[in-house]
Amino acid sequence: MESQNNYIYGKNPVLEAISKNPKRINKIYIQNNIGFDNRIKKIIELAKSAKLQIQFTNLNNKLDRAELGINHQGVMASVSPVEFVEYDDFIESLEGNAHKKIVILDEVSDPHNFGAIIRTCACAGFDGIIVSNHRACPITSTVEKTSAGAVNYIPIVKVNSLSSTLDDLKNNNWWIIATEVGAKDNYFNINYKDMDFAIILGAEGKGISKTLLNKADFKVNIPTKFESLNVSTACAVIVYEAVRQLEEAAPK
Amino acid sequence: MESQNNYIYGKNPVLEAISKNPKRINKIYIQNNIGFDNRIKKIIELAKSAKLQIQFTNLNNKLDRAELGINHQGVMASVSPVEFVEYDDFIESLEGNAHKKIVILDEVSDPHNFGAIIRTCACAGFDGIIVSNHRACPITSTVEKTSAGAVNYIPIVKVNSLSSTLDDLKNNNWWIIATEVGAKDNYFNINYKDMDFAIILGAEGKGISKTLLNKADFKVNIPTKFESLNVSTACAVIVYEAVRQLEEAAPK
Repeated sequence: MESQNNYIYGKNPVLEAISKNPKRINKIYIQNNIGFDNRIKKIIELAKSAKLQIQFTNLNNKLDRAELGINHQGVMASVSPVEFVEYDDFIESLEGNAHKKIVILDEVSDPHNFGAIIRTCACAGFDGIIVSNHRACPITSTVEKTSAGAVNYIPIVKVNSLSSTLDDLKNNNWWIIATEVGAKDNYFNINYKDMDFAIILGAEGKGISKTLLNKADFKVNIPTKFESLNVSTACAVIVYEAVRQLEEAAPK
Repeated sequence: MESQNNYIYGKNPVLEAISKNPKRINKIYIQNNIGFDNRIKKIIELAKSAKLQIQFTNLNNKLDRAELGINHQGVMASVSPVEFVEYDDFIESLEGNAHKKIVILDEVSDPHNFGAIIRTCACAGFDGIIVSNHRACPITSTVEKTSAGAVNYIPIVKVNSLSSTLDDLKNNNWWIIATEVGAKDNYFNINYKDMDFAIILGAEGKGISKTLLNKADFKVNIPTKFESLNVSTACAVIVYEAVRQLEEAAPK
């Protein structure tokens, strides 16, 4: 059901994209049995060092779904329709903000959930969303559509390691809130008003990885009478509890 | 992208379904140019009086997607995988409950949103969901799947007129809360603890119809910084605010 990605075709365009903005690239496609000239070798080398996925395939099969008659020279790359923001730039851009608040996604791979979370965070006035470079859902057109255009409104940050990012945030006085089914505290027992905070959400079924969970300052439960909430719904419930507390505390 | 419905085939089975449980039927299909015998005439008559949709079509095209080689006798009906609950039975079943709380959907037609709302209401421990007989989304397998099985857990009630239902609820001391973009009160300014209440949600884009909005006791806004929330997200935000208030007020 995934909608079509945006593509970049040809050796030089792919080489340029990979050198300048590797985070925008979702995947590199290389023609089966292609001869490895210098530029192809360079693409593979750069892709490997940026930890990008490479798939050897028959490009003409891909092109049926994208665009026919394009001179792809045996290489193409699927790219996000939006630019990711660099972590350092993002943190710098928040300087001076009174109530910094972000959402961190640990392996949320469903594009509808990812898009819905982006839309909710934009509506709630959150500052940004951080995802992992390796295991996050790429920002495809399905994500863009489900977000109702919010992908272009709220910064989305890709980092190499969510674990190091948590360390860095904690060193800078951010508080980390993780959702955990069955945690002792409910999400509404947290005071969101007097701190900068990051809410971590994990993949449905799997939850948040242990490494990240161990770094959380607060673990919170959302009470339910029927199994668990969808991850984008859980996001909305917590994010809007923070909005409520902040709005109620705001001077009228 | 709608998943396949469940079907009933043949004159007698369709006639029986239509007489006994018309609310479970999403649509009647009749073979183009079929001769109208007594049973076909009866089916059309009953379908019309139950305000069911009838489509004259080539059934063999439908059957490709359902099941081949079935002796359909020129008639079939698509039916919900779950049974709807009768309004009167539903209200009776709530008698004695301390905090009655339901969600009413006004023309929410997207099956993913409908399924997500069913799941959220079940998680939140709401008593049921009321939809309109005429313009609601049928409970298809997509709805069932998105609800994560909650369609079989929380009662879903189909009524002929949402407007009369609101009158009836109000006469029985329920309070009606409608979401309206830009309403003066925010959703968290309502005290959900000391009343039986119904939250009405409208179709995305269109909102709640004027007739229903005029009958609401409270109109509430959800503050946003970026356009409006998806309807299933809006549902989660309000429904869980009620859960929060009730949980905080509950004796420990």
